[in-house]
Amino acid sequence: MKKLILLFLITFSTSVVAQIDRMEPPFWYEGMNKSEVQVLFYGKNIAQNSVQVSSNVVITNVTKTENPNYLFVTIDTKNVKAQELQFTFTNGKKSFKRNFEIKKRRPNSPLRKSFDASDVVYLLMPDRFANGNPNNDSSPELQEKANRSLPGGRHGGDIQGIINNLDYIKELGATAIWSTPMCEDNDKGYSYHTYGQSDVYRIDPRYGTNEEYKKLADEMHKRGMKLIKDYVTNHWGAEHWMFKDMPTYDWFHQFPGYAQSNYRMTTQYDINGSKRDAKYCMDGWFVPSMPDLNQSNPLVLNYLIQNAIWWIEYADLDGFRVDTYSYNDKEGIAKWTKAITDEYPYFNIVGEVWMHDQAQISYWQKDSPIAKIQSYNSYLPSVMDFTLHDVFGNVFNEDRADWSNGMIKFYENFVNDFLYADPNNLLIFLENHDTGRFNQIYQNDFKKYQLGMTIMTTMRGIPQIYYGSEIGMAGDKGMGDADIRQDFPGGWKGDTNNAFSASGRTAEQSKYFNFSKKVLNWRKNKEVIHTGKLTHYIPENNVYVYFRHNDKETVMVVINNAPDSQKLNLTRFQENIKLFTSGNDILSGKTIDLKTELAIDGKSAMILELK
Amino acid sequence: MKKLILLFLITFSTSVVAQIDRMEPPFWYEGMNKSEVQVLFYGKNIAQNSVQVSSNVVITNVTKTENPNYLFVTIDTKNVKAQELQFTFTNGKKSFKRNFEIKKRRPNSPLRKSFDASDVVYLLMPDRFANGNPNNDSSPELQEKANRSLPGGRHGGDIQGIINNLDYIKELGATAIWSTPMCEDNDKGYSYHTYGQSDVYRIDPRYGTNEEYKKLADEMHKRGMKLIKDYVTNHWGAEHWMFKDMPTYDWFHQFPGYAQSNYRMTTQYDINGSKRDAKYCMDGWFVPSMPDLNQSNPLVLNYLIQNAIWWIEYADLDGFRVDTYSYNDKEGIAKWTKAITDEYPYFNIVGEVWMHDQAQISYWQKDSPIAKIQSYNSYLPSVMDFTLHDVFGNVFNEDRADWSNGMIKFYENFVNDFLYADPNNLLIFLENHDTGRFNQIYQNDFKKYQLGMTIMTTMRGIPQIYYGSEIGMAGDKGMGDADIRQDFPGGWKGDTNNAFSASGRTAEQSKYFNFSKKVLNWRKNKEVIHTGKLTHYIPENNVYVYFRHNDKETVMVVINNAPDSQKLNLTRFQENIKLFTSGNDILSGKTIDLKTELAIDGKSAMILELK
Repeated sequence: MKKLILLFLITFSTSVVAQIDRMEPPFWYEGMNKSEVQVLFYGKNIAQNSVQVSSNVVITNVTKTENPNYLFVTIDTKNVKAQELQFTFTNGKKSFKRNFEIKKRRPNSPLRKSFDASDVVYLLMPDRFANGNPNNDSSPELQEKANRSLPGGRHGGDIQGIINNLDYIKELGATAIWSTPMCEDNDKGYSYHTYGQSDVYRIDPRYGTNEEYKKLADEMHKRGMKLIKDYVTNHWGAEHWMFKDMPTYDWFHQFPGYAQSNYRMTTQYDINGSKRDAKYCMDGWFVPSMPDLNQSNPLVLNYLIQNAIWWIEYADLDGFRVDTYSYNDKEGIAKWTKAITDEYPYFNIVGEVWMHDQAQISYWQKDSPIAKIQSYNSYLPSVMDFTLHDVFGNVFNEDRADWSNGMIKFYENFVNDFLYADPNNLLIFLENHDTGRFNQIYQNDFKKYQLGMTIMTTMRGIPQIYYGSEIGMAGDKGMGDADIRQDFPGGWKGDTNNAFSASGRTAEQSKYFNFSKKVLNWRKNKEVIHTGKLTHYIPENNVYVYFRHNDKETVMVVINNAPDSQKLNLTRFQENIKLFTSGNDILSGKTIDLKTELAIDGKSAMILELK
Repeated sequence: MKKLILLFLITFSTSVVAQIDRMEPPFWYEGMNKSEVQVLFYGKNIAQNSVQVSSNVVITNVTKTENPNYLFVTIDTKNVKAQELQFTFTNGKKSFKRNFEIKKRRPNSPLRKSFDASDVVYLLMPDRFANGNPNNDSSPELQEKANRSLPGGRHGGDIQGIINNLDYIKELGATAIWSTPMCEDNDKGYSYHTYGQSDVYRIDPRYGTNEEYKKLADEMHKRGMKLIKDYVTNHWGAEHWMFKDMPTYDWFHQFPGYAQSNYRMTTQYDINGSKRDAKYCMDGWFVPSMPDLNQSNPLVLNYLIQNAIWWIEYADLDGFRVDTYSYNDKEGIAKWTKAITDEYPYFNIVGEVWMHDQAQISYWQKDSPIAKIQSYNSYLPSVMDFTLHDVFGNVFNEDRADWSNGMIKFYENFVNDFLYADPNNLLIFLENHDTGRFNQIYQNDFKKYQLGMTIMTTMRGIPQIYYGSEIGMAGDKGMGDADIRQDFPGGWKGDTNNAFSASGRTAEQSKYFNFSKKVLNWRKNKEVIHTGKLTHYIPENNVYVYFRHNDKETVMVVINNAPDSQKLNLTRFQENIKLFTSGNDILSGKTIDLKTELAIDGKSAMILELK
């Protein structure tokens, strides 16, 4: 019936014969849990055509918008085996065809494992990590050309550079990579961060090709490593082709056009908040160059869902990091996240929820008891522990402890774990690509780096390290983003310092790297750290003691943040020390007696495997 | 059968004839919802007696402890009319009697109304408010004698002093009084604060008699005012008679004897916490002079429940404030609170939960969605908004606003209201008897007092003011508690300055009083403030705008914390201003046009009734 009306409408309109400039997704997969796929056809007056598809595949919906250059055709692929389908477009007597392939999936694709607390995530920015292919630094198709002398310019790093250094990352002890986005970003400037994407089905040619991205995943899988894609649901770049010829006026949030977000994400749940403030937070744009996507529009939402799933299948991904998660339309982003995890039940997705209150962060995690207050469920498995990041921000400069300063800040972060649905699925980090670098804040005080890394590698949650810090790289957020996103030394031909190889590292870099390598590699097979229970004790005299324990093993961590050495009476910790009498300190290699008292140097840590 | 065994046991013991030194409660009431009452008899070897009661009243339980001087006899008063009962104690051939009265209750006692957001609570310390009866300043029975020259000594204030000045409090616009505790505290020193009580069935003679306390309630009720008793469940004083001859070793928490609390109340719910830290928080003593009560002991718990109910009936109370609520045994205090609110379903109880995180405070409020995570319910109707108090602490000195300073701090407090089961049943306050005084912090900057009072009288919740601040009293917590608990001027014969009367006040005192009186009396009948919805807007330029509104009325509050005047574009607030075109400013008396722009002076506030 719908088809009849459609034909009727089309018959009475006159038109130019359409050509198809884009078809998205470019192909799809057989045997998906959600068998319907909505194919977007874009071309001049394409909507004036009627459409049919081969092999008796059912078209369940054809949607046109106010823009005649778009046609959304939904087909049901249930029981459709991998094959080349053919769409036929007809306008009056004229018609043309377009192939659409249904591909095989890899075995067990739906049940793919993902990253979890057994992993250590290495965050890198591809433009700044390593330039593996100097021939793709610029692209004739894209506006911004390479200029390494510009701090905020494109420096030429690429996928091949990452592949070339996978063994370095593996040696360090990281098991997963979160790279900042790599889809095409055709902004005139600052495109190196790539959060303003102009084509989300295409890897930016300055990073490489879609095939190279897939190769990166393959090379990582060969090494037992995992690739996490940085997905951006909240906005695209102003150079996005769909922003230049919008399918619908409400594809993006319009005020009309630009209005700045107020960035007050608390409006997402504030029962006292005004509607206006909420609208300006969620619908306002991050910056003028990033049109804000309207996930309340089902076409937009479905486009984003399919794009995300397409990448998982195409590149065989192991996880997502989602940018600005809590700025999205609340209901829309939950549907997006649920759709992906419905398709891949074990797929981990970590959302950026940059807030400073555990209840507020917890809200965004799947099955959150806090979100339940408002009958909301984001379905997002993992969130970022930004309150822990807040603690890392200055704590190691607090030599003197009092009621609320010093190591008590860590303790107070973890006392609120009961607010989370799954505290062990929080991403924990000293820093990321948007914050001041740890080694800058602490002025490359190696002892403080050791304290921070010790906590991060032994605490509940999924540690995330930021490229370069493992060799002591610093960077001042106050100087601008470029300062915290400097090139990794050795990533560019002619770099005099090559920190990727042991022989190329300075003595200072080796000190950082060797310590990092030691704790991260120790962590790799420590199930007690990956899944063991955490029990911590109220810090005294700026010393924080906690245990990770399971039926098989107990690890005791002692962090002395005081500048002077401390002696601990161990009877306080009896409920965890139990019958153990000594501990092997992973850091010093020494055996420590645990019968009465424990002595620890100022600004130092111990990771004791109890015996 | 039980009785037979009892008689059997007693027959074979030899004993001295017991006398009864104490019987608690001293009497009880007919028609209670929980009809059983457990009467404690205390006397030398009282436990060697068998016991019977007159009028066919059923003894449902007789409990003896390891201390033969105690006998706990439970009778069921169901269908027992008001009368004088008689207990008969028998030991072999010897026996003696003791009368126990069942009294009538006042009409509608169980359904008594309590304090709520329509009230304003006046917090006072009776020793420091007014000395109405100079003859009771010291008591021959009690150790500490009056000495007004000692800052931490007893100054002689009493119940009669409060009664004498009820009209002053009423004129000010407060409708309820929370007095710090008034039961006997026989400590050698610092007994003036009276949190270390030695007899919880007796008003301290230096404040007056039980009858005078009842009279205070009566006098308040005549004036339409409400009396809130400060109840202490967590501890008694070391001079308590039961501490000197303990009914059971575990009546108090023993380590053995004293151990200091670590005061980390988060151990109440920390899933990562050690059992030891939790024990030392909840079971540790506040100070050596305050033995910590063990509410896990059913005898202790029941004693505290009955004592509380007895006071409600006896003195016709309108509410409780409960000291150190979150230090109590978690399950025990919930049972205590439930028992009271089961008996009086509309009785309000506000607990002191001195924490700095809304989720943590929310945990303690009845039906808390946060406590529900751990299947806990405290049954406590009201908690104190200590995070709001934290905001009041310095905000008015923050002339320049940024992302997290200035008026945004208020906004950020209220964005978390969704974490509370009932945000309108939070006690809100600028200060109390344990904190620095507002006028000290702000060095008697009257403009800042006006800002603080404006917020407190128009915001959701139950405002609580602290005696003396309404006339500009200051006091520095850093100088010790006595400094924030100074005598109210005019409360003592011979005081040269009498701030209780308009003619006695200095010009400065009048300025504070008249402003306070104006806003508090305006608030009295403003249902829109008592129960209206709150809608607030993200502060801009250090100006916070919020509305209280219901179907009948809208009040717009504008607080300019910037030192310079500001102009507000009113279109932002359209969803609340709606068709109103002007507002009567309660503070200035002026009519303010609301069509386009609103101008407001630096460091000033408006309370606009919209028209």
